[in-house]
Amino acid sequence: MKKILKAILPAGFKASGIACGLKKSGKPDLALLYSKVPAVSCAKFTSNSIIAAPLVVSKKHLESAKGFHAVIVNSGNANCFTGKAGIKDASLTAEYLAKELNIPKDSVLVNSTGIIGKRLNIVKIKQSIPGLVSGLSAQGIHKAKRAIMTTDTFAKEISVSLKIGSKTIHICGIAKGAGMIAPDMATMLCFLMTDVSINRSVLKKALDTAVTKSFNCISVDGCMSTNDTVLILANGAAGNKTIRGGKYLKEFSKALGVVCMELAKMVILDAEGATKFIKIDVAGAKDWHQARKVALAIANSVLFKTAVFGENPNFGRIAAAVGASGLRIKEDQLKIRLGPLKEKHVDLRVSLSLGKAKCRVFTSDLTPGYIKINAAYN
Amino acid sequence: MKKILKAILPAGFKASGIACGLKKSGKPDLALLYSKVPAVSCAKFTSNSIIAAPLVVSKKHLESAKGFHAVIVNSGNANCFTGKAGIKDASLTAEYLAKELNIPKDSVLVNSTGIIGKRLNIVKIKQSIPGLVSGLSAQGIHKAKRAIMTTDTFAKEISVSLKIGSKTIHICGIAKGAGMIAPDMATMLCFLMTDVSINRSVLKKALDTAVTKSFNCISVDGCMSTNDTVLILANGAAGNKTIRGGKYLKEFSKALGVVCMELAKMVILDAEGATKFIKIDVAGAKDWHQARKVALAIANSVLFKTAVFGENPNFGRIAAAVGASGLRIKEDQLKIRLGPLKEKHVDLRVSLSLGKAKCRVFTSDLTPGYIKINAAYN
Repeated sequence: MKKILKAILPAGFKASGIACGLKKSGKPDLALLYSKVPAVSCAKFTSNSIIAAPLVVSKKHLESAKGFHAVIVNSGNANCFTGKAGIKDASLTAEYLAKELNIPKDSVLVNSTGIIGKRLNIVKIKQSIPGLVSGLSAQGIHKAKRAIMTTDTFAKEISVSLKIGSKTIHICGIAKGAGMIAPDMATMLCFLMTDVSINRSVLKKALDTAVTKSFNCISVDGCMSTNDTVLILANGAAGNKTIRGGKYLKEFSKALGVVCMELAKMVILDAEGATKFIKIDVAGAKDWHQARKVALAIANSVLFKTAVFGENPNFGRIAAAVGASGLRIKEDQLKIRLGPLKEKHVDLRVSLSLGKAKCRVFTSDLTPGYIKINAAYN
Repeated sequence: MKKILKAILPAGFKASGIACGLKKSGKPDLALLYSKVPAVSCAKFTSNSIIAAPLVVSKKHLESAKGFHAVIVNSGNANCFTGKAGIKDASLTAEYLAKELNIPKDSVLVNSTGIIGKRLNIVKIKQSIPGLVSGLSAQGIHKAKRAIMTTDTFAKEISVSLKIGSKTIHICGIAKGAGMIAPDMATMLCFLMTDVSINRSVLKKALDTAVTKSFNCISVDGCMSTNDTVLILANGAAGNKTIRGGKYLKEFSKALGVVCMELAKMVILDAEGATKFIKIDVAGAKDWHQARKVALAIANSVLFKTAVFGENPNFGRIAAAVGASGLRIKEDQLKIRLGPLKEKHVDLRVSLSLGKAKCRVFTSDLTPGYIKINAAYN
C-alpha cells in the first residue's frame, strides 16, 4: 500500500469548489464531488437525535437510489434546526444540481456544515451551481477540500493506492473538523472516493469498522454535532473483479482503515485552539467498549484537558475521570503513566487490571484559544 | 422560617479554623466543627468509584458509631489516590483529634479537599491539633468556613431557624466549591449543623432529598470529584420532641432543602472563572430524571457554556446538546427560549413536549479564567 498526504482523485472522479457567498469572509463555501459512472455509496451519520436537514435528504436518497453521481457540500451554514423549510432547501439543492448535471435527483447526496438554526440561502446556491459544475476537474479536489472547511486551519487530505489482483485501486479522502468533535461523530465531514469495484454491503461493513476505530475514537470537546458524515463513493473505474469478501476485502478494508485513521488524527491535530495532540491508550480492560469508555471519559474531562494545556502533570484528575466514568475500579487496580508534557505530542497510558482489551483515543487540550473561537462563532 | 446568609452556630456547637501549613499560601487550611453532646449524623458522598481516603474512614465511622462529636477538614490536599498510606493518614487525623478532645475515635469524621495524588503532611496536622481545639468557640465558624476554601473567592454560609412545636430550631451550613463541580457531587464540601432532635433514619431521607434537588442539580465543568461530601450533624440541643415523621419532618425537610439550595447556588455563583450564573429550566419531560438529564447535557456542553461567555445566542448548540443527550426527540417537539445574555444572570427554558415533569439546574459559563485557574493548579 502506498500512502501520500495529498488528495489525488481516483479514476473517474472530478471535483470543484467555489465561493457562493454563504461565508461572510468570502472564502470558498460550496464543494462538488462527481463521478461520471454511477458509484455505490454508503455513509455513517451522526447519532445525535436532532439531525440536520441535508442528512435527512441524503439518507432518503441512499435508501432509494442504486447509483450515485454527486455529493454537494456547503460550509458556512449547517442547515440544521431549520424545520421543514430546511429539508426543502436541502432537497432543492439536490434538484438544482441534478438538473445542471442531467442526472437523477436521488443520485445526488447533500451535506452542510456551519452554524445551526439559520436558513440556508438557497438562492445563492442555485445561482452558483452552473459555475460549480463547469469548474469540475481532477485538480478541482484542491478547491473542494477548501470549500468544506469552517474553522479548520489546514485541509485534511490523503490518498492511498494498493493492488487488488492485477489492478491498482485508489482511495482518496478529504475531511474537515475542527470543533464539536466527539465520538459518534461531530461536526466532522469526511468524503472518501475510490475507484475500486466493490459490493455495497461489504463496503458498508468495511466503512463501519474503519469509522468505529478512527472517527469514533476522537474527541475535541465532547460535543456531538448534528451534521456529521463519513461518506464513501466507489465507482469501480479501476476495473478490478468486484470485491465481495475474502483476501481482497481484507486488504481494501485495511487501506480504508488507514485513510480514516490518518484523517481522524488530522482533525485532532487541527482541533480548535489546541496546542497539544494527546494519545490515550487504555489497556487491561474487559473489552474494547470498556477501554473506549474509560479513554473517552479522560479525553472529555475538562480538567484533564486544561491540565495538559498548562503542562501540569495532574494525574489525580485522570484518576478522578476514570472513577467518574461509571467503571467499578479500586485505586490499586489503576495504573497511570503520563509522558512529558512539554512537547506537542503527549502520551497517556492507563491500565485497568481488569482484562486484556485495549483502545486508543486521540484528543486535544482545552485552551483559551478554543474559548475565543467558540465564544465569537456567530 | 427565618433565613440569613451568614453562619450562626446552633446551640451546642463550636468551631475553629487555623493555618497548619498545608497551603503554600499560608492561608487557613484546617477546620474543626464540634458538638459537646453526641450528634446523630449522616452524609452523602461522591459516587466516583475512586474515593478519597478520608471518605473511606468517615464511612466506616458512620457505620460503627452512634454519636458524633467532631468533623475535621483540611484543605490544600485531597488525600486521594494515596493508597493504604493515605487511609492511615486519615485515620491518624481522627485518632489525634479524638485524643485531644477525649472522645471516641469513631465519633470523629474526617474530610479533605485539594490536590489529588499527594500524601498528606500528617506531622503538620498533628502539631496543629492542640491549637485547633483550644480555638473552639461559637465565633470560630468564621475561621472554619475560610479554612475549607480552595479556589473559592467567597465563603458560602447560611443559617435558618424555624419553630418545631414550641421550640425554635436552627440549621447552619457552610460549603466550598468551586471547580470540579458536577452532579453526584464534585469537589464540593458542605457541612450542616443543626440543634434539632431528629431520628437518624428520617434525617437521612431528608438529606437525600435535599441533596438530590440542590447539589446534584448543579454543574461547573461536568467533572466529578473524589472527595465530595454533604454531611449533617444534629445534636438535639434545641430540646424539641424528637422528629420521627409527620408535619415537623416536613417543615424541617423544607428548611433543609432551602439551606442546601442556597449553598448550591453560591457554589455556582463562585464557579472558577465564571462570569455568568445560568439557570436552566427543562419542562415537558416524561419524568424528573429525564428533565434533569437534558438540563445537565446542556449545562455540561462546553460549546453552550462558551457561547454564553461570549454572549452569543447560539441556540443551535442547545439543540445539539439536547439531541446528544440520548433523548429521542424530533426538532419540532423542542422549544428553546434563551433570555438576554448581557446580564450576569442568564435564563434558559427548554420544553420537550413529552410529558409534564420538569427540573431546574444551575451552571456557569466556561471562560479563559477557568482555564487559567486549572492549567496552573499544581
